[in-house]
Amino acid sequence: SQPISIILREETSDAHVATEHSQGAGWLARGELDLEEYVRFLMMFWHIYDTLERALERHGSNPVLEPTYNPTLLSRASNLASDIAFFLQCPEATWQSHPAHTSLLLSRPQGFVEYITHLQALSDSADPSLLLAHTYVRYLGDLSGGQVIRRRVAKAYGIDLASGEGVKFYDFKSLDVNKRGDIIRVFDISITSFQAAMLKEANKAFELKLNLFCTFKPPKSP
Amino acid sequence: SQPISIILREETSDAHVATEHSQGAGWLARGELDLEEYVRFLMMFWHIYDTLERALERHGSNPVLEPTYNPTLLSRASNLASDIAFFLQCPEATWQSHPAHTSLLLSRPQGFVEYITHLQALSDSADPSLLLAHTYVRYLGDLSGGQVIRRRVAKAYGIDLASGEGVKFYDFKSLDVNKRGDIIRVFDISITSFQAAMLKEANKAFELKLNLFCTFKPPKSP
Ligand code: VER
Ligand code: VER
Repeated sequence: SQPISIILREETSDAHVATEHSQGAGWLARGELDLEEYVRFLMMFWHIYDTLERALERHGSNPVLEPTYNPTLLSRASNLASDIAFFLQCPEATWQSHPAHTSLLLSRPQGFVEYITHLQALSDSADPSLLLAHTYVRYLGDLSGGQVIRRRVAKAYGIDLASGEGVKFYDFKSLDVNKRGDIIRVFDISITSFQAAMLKEANKAFELKLNLFCTFKPPKSP
Repeated sequence: SQPISIILREETSDAHVATEHSQGAGWLARGELDLEEYVRFLMMFWHIYDTLERALERHGSNPVLEPTYNPTLLSRASNLASDIAFFLQCPEATWQSHPAHTSLLLSRPQGFVEYITHLQALSDSADPSLLLAHTYVRYLGDLSGGQVIRRRVAKAYGIDLASGEGVKFYDFKSLDVNKRGDIIRVFDISITSFQAAMLKEANKAFELKLNLFCTFKPPKSP
């Protein structure tokens, strides 16, 4: 059978094309969104990544999630907060009380609520390992198409790419984005690691049965 | 990569041999246990299966557990209760208050407590999908070695195999035990089903992102 990374790419390619070719993705990727609207997008994204990253932290030891759980390398919420504060020209600690943010919370768009609700439900569900699919779509997307968007956004909103202020979201510091292959390979480990955990558990099950046998009192009759 | 059923068998074969060749397994499999001790074993087993089967019921929709979740075919707790009542010569509804049972509960052997505690912890854990390993070791064991033990037990304790009273534990009614291969194949579906759930979730993740893009207000500037 094929590695999960290949299967994931192939089986989501229609959805990728549909998303990439949507009107909104076009506006974003061509740097056409009004700055106010781009910042609103960053704020919605902050809530989405905050929800996802809390969920991954909560389930970091799940054998399916553990191999790709690398917050130092991947987490985006704090980078998003930094970009938002930059655009709103306010301290990072106070952006959440800025009118742009409070008015977003007062009328949350449907597609925003839906995303958060879905991630939270997965985190609370019997099978949080499905969060792996979101690790894949979010972080690999940011590492791929995200790098193209970074240059367009910088050009559109007059950002100095050298300083990096305002486009930290697209900046995976310790990670050479050309080494995306390394990250992708980690996804394949997820399944192997799941199998390893299962085998360990099967051996534990035998051991438990053996210990149960050890509770037998020896037969009185010869 | 190999099917999980083959991997499970190969990777637990040492543990299988160790358990099968233990002194207690020998006493059991040769029908040498005192009847009192055999009934104590059935009572401990009832608690173990009861814990396992409640856990499987609770997590029946987990994508890893779903393919092998078949209580009608597999559940053992009620068959065990019937065998226990038969040997204790009491109604099935009251065996739990029989002195043989109350004294077991008053001094629970270490290997018994450990088994139950472990299953309950798995059920309450972030990854109940590992219960699959216990489905494997318990039910496939009962369908395999269990069928040999059934005949020895019947002979040792003077049971009429035609009536089946007292050996219902080994009796998988609707299942031809020679069709064990069919059951084993279901284990392979578990991993495939897990992948399918993951792919569905990855496509959902793209859809959520698409819907988020739909919340964008059109650019004012042309
Ligand atoms: C919803 C997520 C998403 C979106 C919206 C999205 O949109 C775009 C856009 C325009 C918007 C562009 C130009 C691109 C380009 C590329 N993407 Fe895509 N992408 C997503 C996820 C995703 C993933 C998961 C991957 C990794 C696939 C892999 O390499 O295995 C990739 C890989 C690549 C490789 C390239 C050039 N992407 N993408
Ligand atoms: C703890 C569980 C266990 C015990 C104690 C246990 O002990 C015994 C004994 C003696 C006691 C004997 C004679 C046997 C015989 C056989 N077993 Fe085993 N067995 C367990 C699990 C288990 C499994 C899971 C399997 C399925 C392997 C497979 O077929 O894939 C099998 C398969 C077989 C096939 C054969 C003849 N067994 N077994």
